[in-house]
Amino acid sequence: MEKKEYVTYGNKGACGCGCGADKEGMGNATGITGCRFSLSPMTDSFVEIILDAVKKTRTDKVWQETGKLSTIYRGRQIHVEDALKGCFINAYREGVHMTLEATYSKGCPGDIKGDSFMAADDELLNEPEIKDVHFPVAAKISLYPMGIPDYMKYIAEVVNHAIDLGIYEKSAHYCTVLSCDVQQLFDYIHYVNSYCGEKLSHYIFEVTISVNSPTK
Amino acid sequence: MEKKEYVTYGNKGACGCGCGADKEGMGNATGITGCRFSLSPMTDSFVEIILDAVKKTRTDKVWQETGKLSTIYRGRQIHVEDALKGCFINAYREGVHMTLEATYSKGCPGDIKGDSFMAADDELLNEPEIKDVHFPVAAKISLYPMGIPDYMKYIAEVVNHAIDLGIYEKSAHYCTVLSCDVQQLFDYIHYVNSYCGEKLSHYIFEVTISVNSPTK
Repeated sequence: MEKKEYVTYGNKGACGCGCGADKEGMGNATGITGCRFSLSPMTDSFVEIILDAVKKTRTDKVWQETGKLSTIYRGRQIHVEDALKGCFINAYREGVHMTLEATYSKGCPGDIKGDSFMAADDELLNEPEIKDVHFPVAAKISLYPMGIPDYMKYIAEVVNHAIDLGIYEKSAHYCTVLSCDVQQLFDYIHYVNSYCGEKLSHYIFEVTISVNSPTK
Repeated sequence: MEKKEYVTYGNKGACGCGCGADKEGMGNATGITGCRFSLSPMTDSFVEIILDAVKKTRTDKVWQETGKLSTIYRGRQIHVEDALKGCFINAYREGVHMTLEATYSKGCPGDIKGDSFMAADDELLNEPEIKDVHFPVAAKISLYPMGIPDYMKYIAEVVNHAIDLGIYEKSAHYCTVLSCDVQQLFDYIHYVNSYCGEKLSHYIFEVTISVNSPTK
């Protein structure tokens, strides 16, 4: 009978994020922020839109990999955020309904130093080209602070910050709904990643952004 | 100055899932399983496909609400699963690339008895129509067991079960990739929700399914 290769995330040094890192687990000590995302332009020309956006986006300061389900960027928080903001804005087409599903994460207990590029400087490569682009977005967000009993207070903190910023639309089952300009949303994403990166050893922040939805 | 209405998820009885339930929090005691999902058919006729699927799907045994970003079903686990499986299969079109983003959840500490319908019987309304439909799917899954330090072992358990079933493709950063027939995938989703509903007080299970992707 064939011997099955099982994962061992429950053990010390093993990874719970599914990355298969069974030996080098370093968690938050790697300093790596990751974002796994998928663009879904709801049009017959979705391939062209995605390829154009990918081509136009500067990813020199992150590590990246594309599979059949999603693309991942890994590196320093500001450069991962910059690359994703660039890719999303570059994929925007007036009148075309599109969603972006993005999973930001940092601190998986078994994360490894590999599959990453930690750029030395702070200069953002995409921001200069996209900082003056404006269009309205709807978004739903969910924050998962892992491994701690008092996770609710961190969720409340980030939701209340959205209320302070005036971008909060409503609370819903399993998520919070935001409504604002695209620049405000990516500023807020930066705030959440900065806050969670500082306060939590392991978190996942799920964001789904929708533009040009025919649903009012 | 305007008085802001903040959320209070950090307090006893308050909800961290974003549902705004500040008083009636009951968590897992409600017995309610929820699923928030979005279909993204990547074609010009996405509106027609989604509306047709919604119309064709029997949702008499769940509570549902549709917003501009997603639809939610809440009720007993088996009926929520049956409705989502129905909606997804009803939206499938040969050759049309489509993704489904689904967030299953149970046990949010502040969940309420409301916004739900707990059907008394076990008869599945959609299964008879869809049980013989077969097509290949690719999926990525991520499980988030909340509020406990040893969450990794539960993740390993469900990933290893996928390995046992022969539907596991690989581990990746922040998710696990599955590849199988649509029936096998929904059987697996049922296993995960049953296992987590029994073992965990609060969990979130994220599933993204892709069909007819042009990426090999």
